[in-house]
Amino acid sequence: MKFCSACGSSVTQTIPAGDNRLRFVCPECDTIHYQNPKMVVGTLPVWEDKVLLCKRAIEPQYGKWTLPAGFMENHESTQEGALRETFEEAGARVEISHLFTLYNLPYISQVYLMFRARLLDLEFAAGPESLEVALFTEAEIPWDQLAFRTIEQTLRRYFEDRRNGSFDFHTATIERNR
Amino acid sequence: MKFCSACGSSVTQTIPAGDNRLRFVCPECDTIHYQNPKMVVGTLPVWEDKVLLCKRAIEPQYGKWTLPAGFMENHESTQEGALRETFEEAGARVEISHLFTLYNLPYISQVYLMFRARLLDLEFAAGPESLEVALFTEAEIPWDQLAFRTIEQTLRRYFEDRRNGSFDFHTATIERNR
Repeated sequence: MKFCSACGSSVTQTIPAGDNRLRFVCPECDTIHYQNPKMVVGTLPVWEDKVLLCKRAIEPQYGKWTLPAGFMENHESTQEGALRETFEEAGARVEISHLFTLYNLPYISQVYLMFRARLLDLEFAAGPESLEVALFTEAEIPWDQLAFRTIEQTLRRYFEDRRNGSFDFHTATIERNR
Repeated sequence: MKFCSACGSSVTQTIPAGDNRLRFVCPECDTIHYQNPKMVVGTLPVWEDKVLLCKRAIEPQYGKWTLPAGFMENHESTQEGALRETFEEAGARVEISHLFTLYNLPYISQVYLMFRARLLDLEFAAGPESLEVALFTEAEIPWDQLAFRTIEQTLRRYFEDRRNGSFDFHTATIERNR
């Protein structure tokens, strides 16, 4: 950030009165420009013993497999965002059951919220951001071709919980690259 | 948003190629300025049969009671943010156990994440944003003096679950004012 989005003047970095962090502040109009983490919301769509994955048609991780997920938009709920992303990326209609994983990625200031979901039919199809959408059994999951650690961890927790016969909520913090 | 924070030019609102929503876009440097929901993170600190509340020393809702919570900052986890807010507002040291409630507030593009927590000692004290910090039994909670519906709902779910002898995770969407 170089310029104030409210008045167009150059911003400076200072710690505002009563605050304890550096913020971008406008010396002309006094606007404080707070920056906050973003949420990525998505689903783990299940059909019988299979889960739905999307092959990415966009960077980063072009060609790698992921669960349908994306940045939450203003004026929607986490669940609405997860349904929207599932339809946009996989053309898939799902019914959300429970929040399943929350992953903190403090090094990029993101929080992933992934919901378990039941695929309502098999009429899915790759959206513009996917090359391909397909169902995988646990044995078929392309573990070495997954796009993100949040997705790998969500899938691992899912199959573990399914083997144990009971689904839990899982949260963890993922640090900068391995 | 009136000006581009990257180059200082006036922004316009258009739907970028491949997108389906109006965004603030800079016609000079082509930066797309996405705007996303913010997370409010906090705790429900418990000591024996009591919970810790803070009386707000700031607007909005000056003088009303709340659980310690605030906007999550970049480069922290949800749990770290909740601990930080608990210490800043109530001078309280807690141990977080489980994510307890997630409330969507789409009309103001916020998501509340409240964690159950165990108060580690009684050395709490009002921080600069609180007038007073105190412990309340269920019967003592000032229900008609609570600052936010997210806080009221979190407290109601807590006492219900405690009576039932088992704590669950609760999520709901809260719409614009009653």
